[in-house]
Amino acid sequence: MNLILLFKSDFIDNSNRLKIKGRRLKHITDVHRASIGDRLTVGLENEKTGIGIITALNNEMLEMDVNLTAPPPAPSPINLVLALPRPKVISRVLLSASSLGIKNIWLVNAKRVEKSYWQSPRLDEENIKKQLILGLEQSKDTVMPTVIKKKLFKPFVEDELPEIIKGTVPVVAHPLTGNRCPGKIEGPVTLAIGPEGGFIPYEAEKLIECGFYPFHIGERILRVETVIPALTALLTFPVAPMSR
Amino acid sequence: MNLILLFKSDFIDNSNRLKIKGRRLKHITDVHRASIGDRLTVGLENEKTGIGIITALNNEMLEMDVNLTAPPPAPSPINLVLALPRPKVISRVLLSASSLGIKNIWLVNAKRVEKSYWQSPRLDEENIKKQLILGLEQSKDTVMPTVIKKKLFKPFVEDELPEIIKGTVPVVAHPLTGNRCPGKIEGPVTLAIGPEGGFIPYEAEKLIECGFYPFHIGERILRVETVIPALTALLTFPVAPMSR
Repeated sequence: MNLILLFKSDFIDNSNRLKIKGRRLKHITDVHRASIGDRLTVGLENEKTGIGIITALNNEMLEMDVNLTAPPPAPSPINLVLALPRPKVISRVLLSASSLGIKNIWLVNAKRVEKSYWQSPRLDEENIKKQLILGLEQSKDTVMPTVIKKKLFKPFVEDELPEIIKGTVPVVAHPLTGNRCPGKIEGPVTLAIGPEGGFIPYEAEKLIECGFYPFHIGERILRVETVIPALTALLTFPVAPMSR
Repeated sequence: MNLILLFKSDFIDNSNRLKIKGRRLKHITDVHRASIGDRLTVGLENEKTGIGIITALNNEMLEMDVNLTAPPPAPSPINLVLALPRPKVISRVLLSASSLGIKNIWLVNAKRVEKSYWQSPRLDEENIKKQLILGLEQSKDTVMPTVIKKKLFKPFVEDELPEIIKGTVPVVAHPLTGNRCPGKIEGPVTLAIGPEGGFIPYEAEKLIECGFYPFHIGERILRVETVIPALTALLTFPVAPMSR
C-alpha cells in the first residue's frame, strides 16, 4: 500500500492520535518494516491525505499521530456500468477500478452473464469494500467508490440509466459497431462494458436508444480486467506532446 | 478462448486434418459444448486464422478439418521492457500483454525487483508459453510473442537496449518526471515500465541517457497489471472523432 487508509473509528477520542490493528498493522510491520518515529503516508476515508508518525508499536497494535493536509487525487471522470464479470476476476477488477479513481460502479446483469455469478461470495459487501480499500491504498486516494448491483438489465437501462448519464458523455464498448474509440472526452463519461462475448444486439440497442455511443478498439477481444484500464486511459487520461 | 490455437504438430501427415487432446479438447467440449459438424474459429501458430470443422469427437480426442484463410490481427507496435513483476501477477501480466498483441517482451531486473522473484516457477518456459497462448486465444491472434529474461540491468541497458530501440520511439513510465504521457505515437514504440516503487533515479537516468523519454500519467500509482493495458492503449490505439 502506498497510503494507509484510516477511518474515523481508528481515532482515539477527538484527538489526532489513532490506534490500528489487524491487516494494516501487519502490512506496516511486515512490508514497510516500520518502527517508532517513522513517518507513513496516510489518508482519512473521504477526507485529506497526510503524514502519520508512529508513536507506539507492538505485536498487537500501533499508534500514530496524524496530520492531514493535502486533498486526495482528482477522481476519474468515468462512471462505470459493467456487466458482472466472472467471479474469478471480480476482486481484481474492483481493485483496479478503485485504483484508477473510478467512483461510481454499477454491476449489471446481461444475457451473457451466467446466473451463478450473482451468487459469488466475492460480491459480499465485505469483500467489495476490501477490494475498494486496496485500490485506494494503491493509488493514494481516500474517496470510497460506490458499487451498486443491478440484477435486472431492462429496468435498470430504462428507468435508472437516463438519470445516471445526465451531464455525462455515455459510451459503450461494442465490437460490432463501425465506430472507433473516440479518444479523450472532455468532462464526465459514462462507460458501459459488456460481459465476455459482449452485449447481445438487443442490449446494445437498448443502450444506444438510451443515448450511448457505441465504439470498438479493433479486432482484438480483450478480457475485462485488461479493457477497463485500457479504456479508462484512452477516454480520460490527459496527454501532452513530447517536450523535446 | 475466442480462437483455438493450433500447432504444426497437431496435423495428421500433410493433410488439412488434425487431432487435438488435453486442455483444448476439454475447453471445446466443456465451454463451447461443441459436437461433430460444428465450426470453430482456429489459427495456426505464427500463421493464418480460419475455420475448423469437427469431424470426430470422443472423450480422448477431437479431429477437425481446417481451412486457414485470414491473417491474424496486426501486432501491437509496442516493445515492452518490463521490470520483473511480483510472482503473483507474472502469469496474468504475460497473458494480458499477449492479448494486447505485444510481440517482444524483455523481463529485466531492477533495484526494487526482489531477488527471489527470479526463482518463481511462473518464470519457467512452460508457464510463460502457456500464458502467451492463453493471450493469443483470447484476442484471436496466432503470432507467438518472445519473452527474454535479463537478470542484469546495466549490461542490458548499455549493450543491448540501444539496438532494441533503433527505429522505435523509446519511452519510460516514470512518476518523478514533469512530462505528461505523450499520447498516441506513430510507428513502433519501446515502452519501459519499472517495478513496484518505480525505477530508482540511477536506473531512470540510464534509460534517459539511452534515449528514453520519461513521462507520467498523474498522481496515481497503478499496479503493473493495470498500467500495461492503460499505457498500451494510450500510446498506440487509434482513435477517431465521434461520428454523430
